[in-house]
Amino acid sequence: MALVVQKYGGTSMGSVERIRNVARRVARTYDEGNDMIVVVSAMSGETNKLVALCNEMCEFPSEREYDVMVATGEQVSIALLAMCLQSMGYKAKSYMGFQVPIITDSAYSKARIEEIDGTKIREDLKNGTIVVVAGFQGIDREGSLTTLGRGGSDTSAVAVAAALNADVCEIYTDVDGIYTTDPRIVPEASKMEKVSYEEMLEMASLGSKVLQIRSVEFAKKYGVVVHVRSSFNDNPGTLVTKEDADMEAVLVSGITYDKNEAKVSVMRVPDKPGIAAKLFSPLSEANITVDMIIQNVSHEGYTDLTFTVPRADFKKALKIVEEAAAKVGAAGVDSNESIAKVSIVGVGMRSHSGVASKMFSTLSNEGINIQMISTSEIKVSCVIDDKYTELAVRVLHEAFGLAKG
Amino acid sequence: MALVVQKYGGTSMGSVERIRNVARRVARTYDEGNDMIVVVSAMSGETNKLVALCNEMCEFPSEREYDVMVATGEQVSIALLAMCLQSMGYKAKSYMGFQVPIITDSAYSKARIEEIDGTKIREDLKNGTIVVVAGFQGIDREGSLTTLGRGGSDTSAVAVAAALNADVCEIYTDVDGIYTTDPRIVPEASKMEKVSYEEMLEMASLGSKVLQIRSVEFAKKYGVVVHVRSSFNDNPGTLVTKEDADMEAVLVSGITYDKNEAKVSVMRVPDKPGIAAKLFSPLSEANITVDMIIQNVSHEGYTDLTFTVPRADFKKALKIVEEAAAKVGAAGVDSNESIAKVSIVGVGMRSHSGVASKMFSTLSNEGINIQMISTSEIKVSCVIDDKYTELAVRVLHEAFGLAKG
Repeated sequence: MALVVQKYGGTSMGSVERIRNVARRVARTYDEGNDMIVVVSAMSGETNKLVALCNEMCEFPSEREYDVMVATGEQVSIALLAMCLQSMGYKAKSYMGFQVPIITDSAYSKARIEEIDGTKIREDLKNGTIVVVAGFQGIDREGSLTTLGRGGSDTSAVAVAAALNADVCEIYTDVDGIYTTDPRIVPEASKMEKVSYEEMLEMASLGSKVLQIRSVEFAKKYGVVVHVRSSFNDNPGTLVTKEDADMEAVLVSGITYDKNEAKVSVMRVPDKPGIAAKLFSPLSEANITVDMIIQNVSHEGYTDLTFTVPRADFKKALKIVEEAAAKVGAAGVDSNESIAKVSIVGVGMRSHSGVASKMFSTLSNEGINIQMISTSEIKVSCVIDDKYTELAVRVLHEAFGLAKG
Repeated sequence: MALVVQKYGGTSMGSVERIRNVARRVARTYDEGNDMIVVVSAMSGETNKLVALCNEMCEFPSEREYDVMVATGEQVSIALLAMCLQSMGYKAKSYMGFQVPIITDSAYSKARIEEIDGTKIREDLKNGTIVVVAGFQGIDREGSLTTLGRGGSDTSAVAVAAALNADVCEIYTDVDGIYTTDPRIVPEASKMEKVSYEEMLEMASLGSKVLQIRSVEFAKKYGVVVHVRSSFNDNPGTLVTKEDADMEAVLVSGITYDKNEAKVSVMRVPDKPGIAAKLFSPLSEANITVDMIIQNVSHEGYTDLTFTVPRADFKKALKIVEEAAAKVGAAGVDSNESIAKVSIVGVGMRSHSGVASKMFSTLSNEGINIQMISTSEIKVSCVIDDKYTELAVRVLHEAFGLAKG
């Protein structure tokens, strides 16, 4: 007998009929002899409706009250699922975040889980009750409702699994699992049987469509085995788990891309201590996240500094950088919005050489120029002209042998 | 400086625009130098929508989960009102029932308030915060959400006013106050300036359209002055308060009627101890509420027993009574669905004689036959043929001089 945590997203909970399907799937796993905790999201569309109502009321809704409002979405879901399970003859009980309790910090609308007390849930499980927990929400130490941000139900599920020491946390979604790359670009992309926490984190741009990244950090920290699978069939999905020997044998596990960045270069920056801080502090003060930063070796006391920012912040960033560049005596600012970042990810890189050079030559063979390079222990990212994105993803997918069968 | 509790119902909270109006009214009272607690209902229509969703999910929804579900209606309202007040520059904070906390028993969907801890609200008031409390909901001692039943927000408001020792509890609604009778029947009906708790309780059938009866019981128990008034204008409404000399000077305060009852007579019942119990126990086991009961003096060891039941339960009641009547050896059962109960209410009756006989002669002058009579200290009720209801109300209203001006 195992303790299974299952999480169902908004699409799976999208209507009364779909909730009945969820109940049947939950009941089946319970009937197989497992203890069950189910974590659910709001019915699809509900959260958007609630947010729209907030925005109709005022332009900048109070964050505390915003959370009180949007938390109702999951509250409706837990009640419907619990009453459905009961009408099928099962013992079931709903829990709002505060009832567990799931304690978070007070960063409304993006709160972080600090502590989960599993005592009450454990008692319910002991007497055979199926426990239904509202995802996405918690309560802070002052007793105010909080929410975890979009996709936060994944994190709720993993955190509850960690707190209750569950055997597995199954994340049900509308895709079959995590793929080696985006199947819309490479139809031969194959579903990964398993992937390490580290790879999953590096594959943010792939994974975020399926799994909230913070939930992966949580799973990694507490060693929760996460099984990403479809709520529409019984196929095995992808296990997100700790690194093992099988994974290390693979050079590259997946190819990711990101078209949401823009590039800014500051030319002939005096190579003196404190200059980088003068350039980047105003960006961070404006809440602009800088991703890749490349600084070349200095020539005659000057260097070029290149970095990427979210494309949405590009115009704002450019204005700030131009002012800062003038102040530090740089020669000028260059920029490019038409870029994409293509990455290869794999824990196998740690023990295999030549992975990066294979990536570079694969791109160069197609005439794709590499504008920036950045590497981590298990990832190599290249910035290229964004018109080559799909081509680059396809040739890399093939070069590293990731296609099915 | 006073502490004012204001309660706004679903119609007043019916849209974003109406909630803005509520916020302006709240702000005005606050700006006049008062401490403010606002208790609100769900936006009109919302509770019905939530109930419909429950019923779509299953025929007999779990009562605990039903309450989790419908409590979201008020949760949305408090968030919207609090964020609106904040956007207007006021300090405001929402409270769900569990956050106050408003402790109730565990009778889901018709819970009774047992205890309110005003500590947290008092702290907020001290620093000038407008406190917005969800009506209709509470939490039981096991930590489950509960709701108080339809109209429960009135009771929430009065209970909060009692717990915080408020100077007045203003109930805002879509009518101007409590009228001497139903203005749809008697256009000359006048708004009462004040009415005693006892009269208000006796006028259930009038008052229940405006004020939940349980809230009046609460107000009476804790001496809370309730001011029923319109949220659409600034007219003074009706004060529900403890009896005073002015009230006693008035013979009759109001005329009420009730068309929702039916009459059952058991003929020639053997007049022996235990017979009444044998007739009424099966009704109470079937959850049928018996209202008026009349037993005449005995003739030759037999008596007739007549009583009224809710018209909705009439058929069920008749079947039960027929069986019970046969068992106790009664001669037969007679019944009538076409009846109405017309009542005159007033604390002045205590010290004035002749009120009842004036009622009887007024009805008799119009040729209206009285089928049953029942009296309390401050009320006389007559059961008549329901086709005479409007006529009876009109002539009594005139006879007791209740018309305006």
